[in-house]
Amino acid sequence: MAKDKVCVVIGAGDATGGAIARRFAREGYTAVVTRRSADKLQSLVARIVEEGGKVHPFGSDARDEAQVEALFRQIETEIGEIEVFVFNIGGNVRFDIRDTTPRVYRKVWEMTAFAGFLTAREAAKAMVPRGRGTMIFTGATASIRGGRGFSAFAGGKHAVRALAQSMARELGPQNIHVAHVIVDGAIDTEWIKTNFPDRYNAGPDAILNPDDIAETYWQLHCQKRSAWTFEMDIRPWKENW
Amino acid sequence: MAKDKVCVVIGAGDATGGAIARRFAREGYTAVVTRRSADKLQSLVARIVEEGGKVHPFGSDARDEAQVEALFRQIETEIGEIEVFVFNIGGNVRFDIRDTTPRVYRKVWEMTAFAGFLTAREAAKAMVPRGRGTMIFTGATASIRGGRGFSAFAGGKHAVRALAQSMARELGPQNIHVAHVIVDGAIDTEWIKTNFPDRYNAGPDAILNPDDIAETYWQLHCQKRSAWTFEMDIRPWKENW
Amino acid sequence: MAKDKVCVVIGAGDATGGAIARRFAREGYTAVVTRRSADKLQSLVARIVEEGGKVHPFGSDARDEAQVEALFRQIETEIGEIEVFVFNIGGNVRFDIRDTTPRVYRKVWEMTAFAGFLTAREAAKAMVPRGRGTMIFTGATASIRGGRGFSAFAGGKHAVRALAQSMARELGPQNIHVAHVIVDGAIDTEWIKTNFPDRYNAGPDAILNPDDIAETYWQLHCQKRSAWTFEMDIRPWKENW
Amino acid sequence: MAKDKVCVVIGAGDATGGAIARRFAREGYTAVVTRRSADKLQSLVARIVEEGGKVHPFGSDARDEAQVEALFRQIETEIGEIEVFVFNIGGNVRFDIRDTTPRVYRKVWEMTAFAGFLTAREAAKAMVPRGRGTMIFTGATASIRGGRGFSAFAGGKHAVRALAQSMARELGPQNIHVAHVIVDGAIDTEWIKTNFPDRYNAGPDAILNPDDIAETYWQLHCQKRSAWTFEMDIRPWKENW
Repeated sequence: MAKDKVCVVIGAGDATGGAIARRFAREGYTAVVTRRSADKLQSLVARIVEEGGKVHPFGSDARDEAQVEALFRQIETEIGEIEVFVFNIGGNVRFDIRDTTPRVYRKVWEMTAFAGFLTAREAAKAMVPRGRGTMIFTGATASIRGGRGFSAFAGGKHAVRALAQSMARELGPQNIHVAHVIVDGAIDTEWIKTNFPDRYNAGPDAILNPDDIAETYWQLHCQKRSAWTFEMDIRPWKENW
Repeated sequence: MAKDKVCVVIGAGDATGGAIARRFAREGYTAVVTRRSADKLQSLVARIVEEGGKVHPFGSDARDEAQVEALFRQIETEIGEIEVFVFNIGGNVRFDIRDTTPRVYRKVWEMTAFAGFLTAREAAKAMVPRGRGTMIFTGATASIRGGRGFSAFAGGKHAVRALAQSMARELGPQNIHVAHVIVDGAIDTEWIKTNFPDRYNAGPDAILNPDDIAETYWQLHCQKRSAWTFEMDIRPWKENW
Repeated sequence: MAKDKVCVVIGAGDATGGAIARRFAREGYTAVVTRRSADKLQSLVARIVEEGGKVHPFGSDARDEAQVEALFRQIETEIGEIEVFVFNIGGNVRFDIRDTTPRVYRKVWEMTAFAGFLTAREAAKAMVPRGRGTMIFTGATASIRGGRGFSAFAGGKHAVRALAQSMARELGPQNIHVAHVIVDGAIDTEWIKTNFPDRYNAGPDAILNPDDIAETYWQLHCQKRSAWTFEMDIRPWKENW
Repeated sequence: MAKDKVCVVIGAGDATGGAIARRFAREGYTAVVTRRSADKLQSLVARIVEEGGKVHPFGSDARDEAQVEALFRQIETEIGEIEVFVFNIGGNVRFDIRDTTPRVYRKVWEMTAFAGFLTAREAAKAMVPRGRGTMIFTGATASIRGGRGFSAFAGGKHAVRALAQSMARELGPQNIHVAHVIVDGAIDTEWIKTNFPDRYNAGPDAILNPDDIAETYWQLHCQKRSAWTFEMDIRPWKENW
């Protein structure tokens, strides 16, 4: 019996991760969606099922080596083969340097770079022996530029980009497509709606629609290997950059 | 009667430009393909027709202001509305600095930056009043990095990228999607086959397939405006970068 | 009799070029300063002489191949050996894309990239046989980023950077130090004083002092070849970047 | 009685850190040099003293918050005012992604980014109230580019660069000069001599001389604040880049 093709989305708690999981589920992939607390995945799960897709939610701390190993083992043995891996955990905080505590600095790194490393490494372990797979990392403007107050956040995002680039150079010739998407702009979420009403109401399509972001991830996965993209930026048409 | 939707490919003489024209023709766009000598467009025209598409070939020197203006006027009045503009002229030469003549330096700039400017500007004149359109520029590794012998070529390609970025920032908020694709690697052409047989025969998909490049251009055009890409790189999976 | 050591500054018409010429003259270099009209060099010449330096002014159009060749021949035969070459011509214009005429686009390229190529190539011809020399190009923010209205200016500056980088990679191993300085911010000039009084009066050192820029050029020249810099940025301490 | 002006070099165990400490000591700064084990600082201390300089060695683990706070408190209360801070800890390891253990990944980050953050933050706490100071971070090619096997190392160095850039943007307007030096090439050390003899013997000045690197740090410190550099690269003249 053919095994399911799995798309794992690490950090499916927000609008973007959820939209990506739904996009791949629509194409027949079994979505595995994770965030720290499984409870908060219920509405996403319901929606994927409603749209006719297959989905498995997991409460899993991506910063915990043992949990990450157990998660990937369980996926591969009980659910199917991981064809697509998406790392989508954020970690946006802003503090002036003297107000950035070592605890915060470390925590942001653990949520971004360390969690990205732990999960991507397990995904690579599953993909390399099969000689195929797609791995996509969600980046931000802070992935390529520091800024006042962004020591911790930009540090974590820069490190994720370095991880993705290092993996792309190593794993590309092993038929594993590694990509990094620089999301530059506000995303349509409740949080933006509440906290930045002017921006939210700046007109049609003035902020990033999670479904449109998800479409880009799907396109990356569909690329033929003679012409793979490592990096692309996305932003709303009205963004001032 | 509804006007045709036009996709103009400036520099359709090579494999890439031709593949892009065919890709858009397949979706119902009327392809307008240009190169200096119309004669050399015959096989491309035949192929598009054979595939059921519509196509108009033009012999036109993209470095000549009068010819460029006449070309765009004729397209808009006789053929249809320019929805997609692709600038695909190369200009790859390699000379050490003391062997680079002013004539060569100027000529490479005229083929790349100046031709890109002249044609993109006419495309912008057509698109801005309608408030829509897609413009894609073909870049290369030399667009972002100089190298021994590349004073002229990298100069031209860097300038094209500056043009694309400047236009993207200006025209994005006017609903015109401007993008720049960095093509990093050898493309599957007769020239590569003849001159770099080892590279050509390095295994399946080891060099860029023009059809796979063209797919990326089509995907860029399909992006929704809440999540437009300005820049992406593409290279073969086995490329050492 | 030992020949003079020459520092040529192409585009010594502005505050920066003048300060660089004075800085090197103070160290015993014979300054050769050029701009299109020699008349406008008189006050600079007087100042260098007053400070005890040696200087030769030339009215010379750096976009004209014949004039450039004649200039460098005359310097090498009548004045001394070109040890330092500085390319400092600007070309800052700002027009929306549809308002940028082909004439302007070409002219800006000629002032920046083409003049940079012509003069740097002659300098390389003089330096390579001797196996030593320093070449410094003045860049700007537009050297690395396009922007609304900057199609022409950013195109020219990007091309100059590509030229510098290509030359650095070729000529470094021939003991010629090629560097590119990205000047990011307003420079203390009459023009800024008149047109941007708020910026001009933003407090001590809030805009770039030409003498401080010149010091950086001198430091670059003094670097030992085990540790040469290709690129550095400079901006005022209060600059928002 | 005037307090001593202090230059702290975190990570003075290698050739580069030692040369930087000696360079500033020669200008009258009291050098504070640290590495994990104070024993290994003895020859450096002897050399600085021999050259007529003042120096205080400390065995201090830069990854340990309590040790770092105690170190900076002791310097400020017992030795003098920290005018210059240099962060020079490396962390170069190379493992394919599946061979990179979480322990190694974390440790490299702690040595680079976390130690950089802890020490730079204490330096900022000392400098900001006085409204002056210079902070220089030692970078590497891995600061701006990932590579096969460099997930951990490039991650740490990218994060240090993000830290430096974020601090530069925040602290520049408070009269604190923050800079990042990208050291691109092998440095003249016993380790290179033993492990890469071909490279070591590639001719005069073919590898980076620590004293020449140190000179660049001194020049950065000397820059006037109207024209501060954030970033510069340095490499040997014969380097292939």
